Amino acid sequence: MDWQAAISEAGARIADHVRRTPVATVRWGAPTSRFGARTVRFKFEQMQHTGSFKARGAFNTLLQAQVPEAGIVAASGGNHGAAVARAAAALGHRARIYVPQIAGPAKIALIRAQGADLQVVPGAYAEAAARAAEWQVATGAMQVHPYDAPATVAGQGTVMAEWEDQGLDADTVLIAVGGGGLVAGALGWLQGRRKVVAVEPETACALHAALAAGAPADVNVSGIAVNALGAKRIGDICFGLAQKQGVESVLVSDTAIAGAQAALWREMRQLVEPAGAAALAALMSGAYVPAEGERVAVLVCGGNVAPDPLDSMDSPG
Amino acid sequence: MDWQAAISEAGARIADHVRRTPVATVRWGAPTSRFGARTVRFKFEQMQHTGSFKARGAFNTLLQAQVPEAGIVAASGGNHGAAVARAAAALGHRARIYVPQIAGPAKIALIRAQGADLQVVPGAYAEAAARAAEWQVATGAMQVHPYDAPATVAGQGTVMAEWEDQGLDADTVLIAVGGGGLVAGALGWLQGRRKVVAVEPETACALHAALAAGAPADVNVSGIAVNALGAKRIGDICFGLAQKQGVESVLVSDTAIAGAQAALWREMRQLVEPAGAAALAALMSGAYVPAEGERVAVLVCGGNVAPDPLDSMDSPG
Repeated sequence: MDWQAAISEAGARIADHVRRTPVATVRWGAPTSRFGARTVRFKFEQMQHTGSFKARGAFNTLLQAQVPEAGIVAASGGNHGAAVARAAAALGHRARIYVPQIAGPAKIALIRAQGADLQVVPGAYAEAAARAAEWQVATGAMQVHPYDAPATVAGQGTVMAEWEDQGLDADTVLIAVGGGGLVAGALGWLQGRRKVVAVEPETACALHAALAAGAPADVNVSGIAVNALGAKRIGDICFGLAQKQGVESVLVSDTAIAGAQAALWREMRQLVEPAGAAALAALMSGAYVPAEGERVAVLVCGGNVAPDPLDSMDSPG
Repeated sequence: MDWQAAISEAGARIADHVRRTPVATVRWGAPTSRFGARTVRFKFEQMQHTGSFKARGAFNTLLQAQVPEAGIVAASGGNHGAAVARAAAALGHRARIYVPQIAGPAKIALIRAQGADLQVVPGAYAEAAARAAEWQVATGAMQVHPYDAPATVAGQGTVMAEWEDQGLDADTVLIAVGGGGLVAGALGWLQGRRKVVAVEPETACALHAALAAGAPADVNVSGIAVNALGAKRIGDICFGLAQKQGVESVLVSDTAIAGAQAALWREMRQLVEPAGAAALAALMSGAYVPAEGERVAVLVCGGNVAPDPLDSMDSPG
């Protein structure tokens, strides 16, 4: 597949529906810290519609699909469901979203706010996925895969294309990985022109396990980023690109993720969900140590933190 | 005074110490909302060191001063104090910061985290200012004015210079006003090349009152943005520039500010303090209604929201 062409086309297709998210180059950390002081390029993709990059793949998918009368169905840990619901509403389609209880109240409320027919399913993601598959069979609704479909990957790839268009000057880009749609899009776009570091939680590392085993395989998932990064099996598209291009795979602890999440607020007033801080956690914890002079970039991919901070905000006096 | 020259010099002086904060152009609002749908240019200056534009004026002041052995003293509702404390620490000076209790625990903790000698004063800003003046007289410490000094204004003016350098394509810029340092810097830089709308809370409107009266005068201040925008009297520098250039002054209610604050989180995952949302509130509430085709920009100036959202964040599982 010609990923660069597909991603270029996706970029043109979704341009009117997604945001060009901001970037910044920041001197990060203190010379005395474990991490040292370093210049880091950030892209703040959590400022995308519905708070994550997922809007890109959702719009790219729906804009080129023949959507049936029965509409759209998706299963999601939260971010994908919100993105699909928004794209469906914007384009005039019905959407039924199955979400597991572990998505948490903030993400569930976010999906509901997009106007979708929301189904909260007890248990974890697999349960929601099974219910979505049943609905698809029963009604003929179209299912939008969260990460392992060409249109999804091409949409997510527009993040990296856009970042390069914004003048990215980095040798290496750190990207959090769940099911692998985002990193697959980056690999598809970059084709080895920059190094990609795939960052996963120790407790949800489907890509890391697949690379070690030589093939995708089911893993157990848990931890603070599980509702966003907790895919039980890496997507085939991601695995193929990662294996072929020799991506560097690193793992971070939940403690490191929480530390990076706190640092993003303290240093830059960016409040993000754990998944959104995972890539930075790899740099701050030393899971990935750049070489002398290596220019690094960190993709902040999602901001749907729980609980919703508006719930505790000062009310007008 | 040649403000453009002073601001250019300030920009060069502080470049190694402050962040070039990101900008974004965003389609904002729904066609069905009171506000309508509109393209808005944002600058996210709350991502500056210590969470507000105040770091610019503080660094510009300290970098050109002969700082006495007794160090620096400042009184502040929070943001200025944090900025002065940071600049002092970065440049190797002692700093004593007087802060009123109404600054709230999050801002007080932020100042303490910069390593300053922090003095929390019962009551409001005027009490803290009196104590700072006493300390200055007793010790010979250098006082850094929060808004009404040329070096402060020139530093804050670098926000607008930087925004233009980033390609700002707006006819009109909306800016929140407290004591007027930030808007004075913008007026000094722009010299009428773009329209500036000065936005104040109805309950803290020192500039609005001064423009009506023809001279700065004391006003009563209260409301949700009071610790950042609650100057009792507009600065003379700001008043002079605003009067001469015929700035448009608009007022927003606390409810409108809280609404804009909530919208910044819901639509863009930016959690800011009330003052940081005030300029957007003018647009969303209709306090300022742009003409057909008028291209508007909103400066988000501060992010030190209370309570600290990290206090309620999910802890690692």
